[in-house]
Amino acid sequence: MNPIQQPQIDALRALLGDARVLTKAIDTLPYGFDGTAALSAEAGCVVFPTTTAEVAACLRIATDARVPVVTRGSGTGLSGGSVPVAGGMVLCLNQMDRVLELDAANLTIRVEPGVITQKIDELAAEQGLFYPPDPGSQKISTIGGNVAENSGGLRGLKYGVTRDYVMGLRVVLADGEVAWLGSGCVKDVAGYSLRDLFIGSEGTLGVVTEVLLKLLPRPAARGTMTATFASMEAAAQAVSDIIAQRIVPCTMEFLDQTTLRCVENYARIGLPTDAAALLLLESDGSQSAVDEELAAVRRVLEASAALRVETAASEEDAQRLRTARRAAFSALARVRPTTILEDVTVPRSRLAEMVRHIGAVAERHALQIGVFGHMGDGNLHPTFLTDERDADEMHRVELALDAIVEKTLELGGTITGEHGVGLAKKRFLPQQFDDASFALLGRIKQTLDPQGLLNPGKIFDMAPAGQS
Amino acid sequence: MNPIQQPQIDALRALLGDARVLTKAIDTLPYGFDGTAALSAEAGCVVFPTTTAEVAACLRIATDARVPVVTRGSGTGLSGGSVPVAGGMVLCLNQMDRVLELDAANLTIRVEPGVITQKIDELAAEQGLFYPPDPGSQKISTIGGNVAENSGGLRGLKYGVTRDYVMGLRVVLADGEVAWLGSGCVKDVAGYSLRDLFIGSEGTLGVVTEVLLKLLPRPAARGTMTATFASMEAAAQAVSDIIAQRIVPCTMEFLDQTTLRCVENYARIGLPTDAAALLLLESDGSQSAVDEELAAVRRVLEASAALRVETAASEEDAQRLRTARRAAFSALARVRPTTILEDVTVPRSRLAEMVRHIGAVAERHALQIGVFGHMGDGNLHPTFLTDERDADEMHRVELALDAIVEKTLELGGTITGEHGVGLAKKRFLPQQFDDASFALLGRIKQTLDPQGLLNPGKIFDMAPAGQS
Repeated sequence: MNPIQQPQIDALRALLGDARVLTKAIDTLPYGFDGTAALSAEAGCVVFPTTTAEVAACLRIATDARVPVVTRGSGTGLSGGSVPVAGGMVLCLNQMDRVLELDAANLTIRVEPGVITQKIDELAAEQGLFYPPDPGSQKISTIGGNVAENSGGLRGLKYGVTRDYVMGLRVVLADGEVAWLGSGCVKDVAGYSLRDLFIGSEGTLGVVTEVLLKLLPRPAARGTMTATFASMEAAAQAVSDIIAQRIVPCTMEFLDQTTLRCVENYARIGLPTDAAALLLLESDGSQSAVDEELAAVRRVLEASAALRVETAASEEDAQRLRTARRAAFSALARVRPTTILEDVTVPRSRLAEMVRHIGAVAERHALQIGVFGHMGDGNLHPTFLTDERDADEMHRVELALDAIVEKTLELGGTITGEHGVGLAKKRFLPQQFDDASFALLGRIKQTLDPQGLLNPGKIFDMAPAGQS
Repeated sequence: MNPIQQPQIDALRALLGDARVLTKAIDTLPYGFDGTAALSAEAGCVVFPTTTAEVAACLRIATDARVPVVTRGSGTGLSGGSVPVAGGMVLCLNQMDRVLELDAANLTIRVEPGVITQKIDELAAEQGLFYPPDPGSQKISTIGGNVAENSGGLRGLKYGVTRDYVMGLRVVLADGEVAWLGSGCVKDVAGYSLRDLFIGSEGTLGVVTEVLLKLLPRPAARGTMTATFASMEAAAQAVSDIIAQRIVPCTMEFLDQTTLRCVENYARIGLPTDAAALLLLESDGSQSAVDEELAAVRRVLEASAALRVETAASEEDAQRLRTARRAAFSALARVRPTTILEDVTVPRSRLAEMVRHIGAVAERHALQIGVFGHMGDGNLHPTFLTDERDADEMHRVELALDAIVEKTLELGGTITGEHGVGLAKKRFLPQQFDDASFALLGRIKQTLDPQGLLNPGKIFDMAPAGQS
């Protein structure tokens, strides 16, 4: 791999014009990191193509000179997946932000990768339709990034994740060839699902330049409920009890006491800061289905160890409670200089055990860890409130992370439920995969990107070309 | 590739015992074909492993001698995907039929590949749970075959297909290595989704020996409705009207007049044989949600060109109507000696156009084509009632197939919605894929099965080893 040189920069300028090729350090600086703590690098140039043909041409210029390429959108990623390679090219797709078609008859929307996630659902809503995936960053994240990371969100319990809504992708391959993967049909089994291989591949197999998404009819009604608990285990048990009753609400989110207090400090919305845990539950569907489901949930909660169960009386009230959950990361991030957001996930029945373990780890290593997340999915976000300038504390963070990951894998969990592996998690990946499946990852990468120039070093380190 | 020889057969007998290795023509005959018309071959041997280790050992014996291997379950496939290679090995997984674990707390079931599809839903039902995919062959098809073909079913409109329920797979790779792909967590984004690459790969990338499936809470109620129409176009329009009202019922199936008459002849259940088309609609969920949805559907149908709309008065009545749809293939298959079941799918909004085209093609080529299928998914099963001994008629069938596929692709459709490519559709596959994505299929196959011994010649013909 080589850093980018003047001849390639000249070629890029000829292709895109001067304004869409940044090379000065002061201009490229904002593209040197993403939402992940303590990871950055200085890109050699940042380019802003606006068409698939331009993306292909940029890739050819890079590939011919063996220059590494990192694709990015808004840079909200939480695993370092869009941190540049020093001296390499950053392909920023923010300016490919056109909505190409909303097809209400077929319940689909076709967009460019730079479209903001929330905008997709807003456009759908205008037609009575619904785009369910709602990652925490939806107001600024791009759909291209969501596809690259297979992003989740707060409605995952009932509606699944980004993968469940991607019908087709236009991708530019490492050699600049353009391929359409997938289908405009709701059912299509022709050939291998290359589309699914690209979803969640974190920019390491190709560059997505167009996304065809499935939409659903918009639920007519939504209801919101909260419950507080004297312990996290009691909250986890309540979630298990709800599922044991064969109820799968749209959303079952939680905040622990640390997070509750930070959010209340930040947003002043009257949260019960004396509770050890707050559950946020939402149901959607027809009004009668919502009423029935929330009544059933309330019965389970009242039979559980819940301290207090409240149903939002108005949409405004519901909005306030949702804000509490959505503000969790921002609120925690204000407390200390460095925020490290974890993303471990365990089978639902092991939640209480995992939560207990995180508490013990925090105590053992004298660390401040707020925990919130998608309890119904078993997806926890232990959030380390720390300071990267304190070497001793960072060492303890490392030890704590190791202990959390070890327990996660022991419980049959995953090192990442929705943030991706990127740079942040790659040292743990071989522990999760068996030898044969880990080797397969490398063989797939070698096949799709033989020179190893697409987002190099993310997910795993590739064997040098020629070896496999 | 070589036919199997005595040394391999001896090795297989030593491994599995004589009773689980068939070599006589009279014994292997039933494994020489599947549910697809006019395709068969004589296997060199049929083996019945019962553990992952035995499957791996069988594969190693085959691979070392470069003997092709075709995996099969019940042989209900409709694209020739489990037709053997002449002289090769058939790996029959029917005896790997253990249910390993039903985990009600995590809403999962773990099974071996030879478990019958319907049994999975029956076991789930005992726990108040639900396995939605219900391919037409569910009473005899195996889950391993469903995974290989990514099977659909009658509930696909609301609940999706097999892929949407597969959380994890144990697979034996071509070299006999064993890999676990996927996760017991409902969210997991660690590494490429190799699991999704294997789902629908039709036995060409490895052998699935264990499947972890997601279950849902079982809907409390179900309602069934039928509507008849004076033309297929009117029925297709009614389906579009329902979706335009943002209603997505569990099921929207249809039968054309040819199919209606055959079913009535076969099952004598009082179907309206004078109608040009019958729609079968089902709604499920809570009782109130079902009542609301069916009422809304009824309003749309009554405003459409429907001749008659009927709601099933009892579960018995509903069962009768479902049987009419489930019996369609069997009923059509009785009419002429050879039944060729097509599986084209188009975006929903192009349904009426596609149905008109099929009628015109049947007339132009003087063929009898019954049409039924999953109208809500745009998935049609034009069914040729023909006789493979009549060379002229078979030539007209070929011409008609070409014309149907051409129109399908022109409308943005797929050559197969749920039956797979196998042998039956492979000549059409390059028309659906662009050059870059078609080349990718071959590169993936080459990576996973470099000798090309796993289900060779299915989906596409592989370039000889060494070329890529």
